Amino acid sequence: MIASALFINSDRLNQSIEKLAQIGQVADGGVTRIAFSPEDIAARNLVLNWMREAGMNVRIDAAGNIIGRYEGKQANFPALATGSHIDTVPNGGRYDGALGVLAGIEIVRTFKENNIRLEHSIEVIVFTDEESTMIGSKAMAGTANNDLGNYRLADGKSIAESLAKIGGDWDKLGRAKRDRSDIAAYIELHVEQGGILDNLNKQIGVVEGVVGAYRGMITVTGKANHAGTTPMEMRQDALVAASQIVLAVNDLGTKIPGNQVATVGKFNVFPNATNIVPGQVEMSVDIRDLSADHVKYLITKLEQELIEIASGTQTKITLKPYLWVDPTLAAVEIVKAIANTCDRLGLSHHILPSRAGHDAQEIGRFTDIGMIFVPSIEGISHSPKEHTTPEQCTQGTNVLLQTFLQLDQIYSTQILHQSQHPPANQFAG
Amino acid sequence: MIASALFINSDRLNQSIEKLAQIGQVADGGVTRIAFSPEDIAARNLVLNWMREAGMNVRIDAAGNIIGRYEGKQANFPALATGSHIDTVPNGGRYDGALGVLAGIEIVRTFKENNIRLEHSIEVIVFTDEESTMIGSKAMAGTANNDLGNYRLADGKSIAESLAKIGGDWDKLGRAKRDRSDIAAYIELHVEQGGILDNLNKQIGVVEGVVGAYRGMITVTGKANHAGTTPMEMRQDALVAASQIVLAVNDLGTKIPGNQVATVGKFNVFPNATNIVPGQVEMSVDIRDLSADHVKYLITKLEQELIEIASGTQTKITLKPYLWVDPTLAAVEIVKAIANTCDRLGLSHHILPSRAGHDAQEIGRFTDIGMIFVPSIEGISHSPKEHTTPEQCTQGTNVLLQTFLQLDQIYSTQILHQSQHPPANQFAG
Repeated sequence: MIASALFINSDRLNQSIEKLAQIGQVADGGVTRIAFSPEDIAARNLVLNWMREAGMNVRIDAAGNIIGRYEGKQANFPALATGSHIDTVPNGGRYDGALGVLAGIEIVRTFKENNIRLEHSIEVIVFTDEESTMIGSKAMAGTANNDLGNYRLADGKSIAESLAKIGGDWDKLGRAKRDRSDIAAYIELHVEQGGILDNLNKQIGVVEGVVGAYRGMITVTGKANHAGTTPMEMRQDALVAASQIVLAVNDLGTKIPGNQVATVGKFNVFPNATNIVPGQVEMSVDIRDLSADHVKYLITKLEQELIEIASGTQTKITLKPYLWVDPTLAAVEIVKAIANTCDRLGLSHHILPSRAGHDAQEIGRFTDIGMIFVPSIEGISHSPKEHTTPEQCTQGTNVLLQTFLQLDQIYSTQILHQSQHPPANQFAG
Repeated sequence: MIASALFINSDRLNQSIEKLAQIGQVADGGVTRIAFSPEDIAARNLVLNWMREAGMNVRIDAAGNIIGRYEGKQANFPALATGSHIDTVPNGGRYDGALGVLAGIEIVRTFKENNIRLEHSIEVIVFTDEESTMIGSKAMAGTANNDLGNYRLADGKSIAESLAKIGGDWDKLGRAKRDRSDIAAYIELHVEQGGILDNLNKQIGVVEGVVGAYRGMITVTGKANHAGTTPMEMRQDALVAASQIVLAVNDLGTKIPGNQVATVGKFNVFPNATNIVPGQVEMSVDIRDLSADHVKYLITKLEQELIEIASGTQTKITLKPYLWVDPTLAAVEIVKAIANTCDRLGLSHHILPSRAGHDAQEIGRFTDIGMIFVPSIEGISHSPKEHTTPEQCTQGTNVLLQTFLQLDQIYSTQILHQSQHPPANQFAG
């Protein structure tokens, strides 16, 4: 190990977080910095200058991703990459995305001022529009859709026009694609956006993978009828059937062993009047798990339940899937390296899945990935109330730095075997 | 019995139904004749003239009720009354209400052309605005609210202004009140507005009472949270709790012995987004039964269930009652008289509650009532598709006529005991 006692500059990191949060700042410390907006562009320029000042070569690829590169000793080695995003949801938090980018820059600053160069080059990447289209990480993974119509931006502009504003080029999007020979591993530091670490009082989350997601729309059709004059035995009450479905979906999450989550979040009743037996209900179902096979098993169970509920309530029930996102497993060596680092730094850790989507899930389609989580106080995110303490931000960044040092060694010894290395993500849609 | 072979003129009855339906007629044979509208006023004038032509003295009371009176032999006897309403819901049917009024007029026409006078006077009453405020029957029962602000009409006009248009007088509403010494019994012929008779293939419904109705609004408060990052065990899912409530309400209707109906018709989820665990649900509950005590028992059961569900789902649940309508039982002698009449006329009958509201429920607050139902094809009502055949209309009217003949005898012998007669409706709010 080169420098197990090497730590980042905590004040400098947190000042950077503070300064970036001023761009698009709203009341209560929140941030509105929608991708491609003037605020996003101003933030990108600030970060790009910080990368250059930290000694990185910076380029913008066709997807508008900002890629800062701190050269390693071995010119023929693939890079070790980190990063995240600096766009936000409307009225979002100051840590979601920003922390991962600024941690990467702070680590390079630390290497530079200590005259450290690793065997591998280090890349710090700002991915374009994580909060909406994920066009940046998808283009890099080659999973972006070629059809302009598939990208709807809140301001109504086309993705092509928007990419042009930040130095990207829709027509050359394919050039943003990269592969395993080019990036050996990608590690993303992010706030948890959930309450597990805060609840368990753990300092670091070691992410075992980003869950896959299934979404479907369920339509229950019964018969609308007068709530007074229709005896119970003559009813085909769509809401009674739909309520059974809500409980069946909840049971998928709670009664079947595993760490899956299953949710009905959207639920609309027709005609929705006090004195009318409901004739129709439309509802969403959302199931997430680290194992695609497990999600598929749960869907099969759900389909069986729907048949029984339809029969028991004399209703017609249809389930239309409309989204499938493959899970992305973290590489086992990276999970081990992060956990080891925590032990060596005396930081408590907890291994958990990421149930929110991140750029890492797309990068994991072509190379090894890992993620480091720091706690979100009370699990709050996408809100001005999102908060992670300066100390927690520093701890996560130090874990990322030390993990880089470990991985630099591990991947150096593996480099000759790399062509036989199977992709970490074993799951297919 | 004066004339057991006396029958009304079927063609004349059905021509009257046809002619009245032309006022406010819409596509597909439906009718829009909102109370106090020009169509309603035109229809009232037509009906008032028909009453006069049939030999009735006609007056309009302070509530705008049209009261046609065909004098009986005994000037000191209270009247036997019938009637219903001729206003409709928007795009409603041609039988709902109209049949009861036109049947009464047809019966008087039949008496007159056969030179028949009963011991009691016969009154045929057109009640004002049954479909919205029920101001007509409520004023007659003395149950109308004195506060102008309690009456909201669809056209935004005040009830006082509207009553003036039809010859009523808001300031003298109390004068419309009547009592048992004035009306001995009120029998209303109406289409069922439900599917029971059509389903059982019965010709006449003998109504045992108009159900009471309880309505409440239930609010379930949990915690809105990210549907991905919030583990199942950390959720307070308002929709899961609300679904349990829907099933509990349905169980009140189906698993507890009795003829009650229990319905959740209105159901709104917040924030109602696919990827957010629902934080709040607002829902209606509607319970109806002939016994006020039974409804109260069911509400107590529901309240117990809500406490258990709140505890099991870590949510807060409130139930706010906002409507209570007392049930009105039909007088046993009237139920018997109608059933006897059916047997003698060779018409099949079925004893059932009315689960829709009718003017009879208010008149039953002060005197004996009964109702005669004829089938609604497929139970459809409040729709242009509402249909009852001419033959069924005729059958119902003949049953009403023969019931009058029976009641004329029964109430003549009872007349001396009347002051000791308890009110038929034993229930209080």
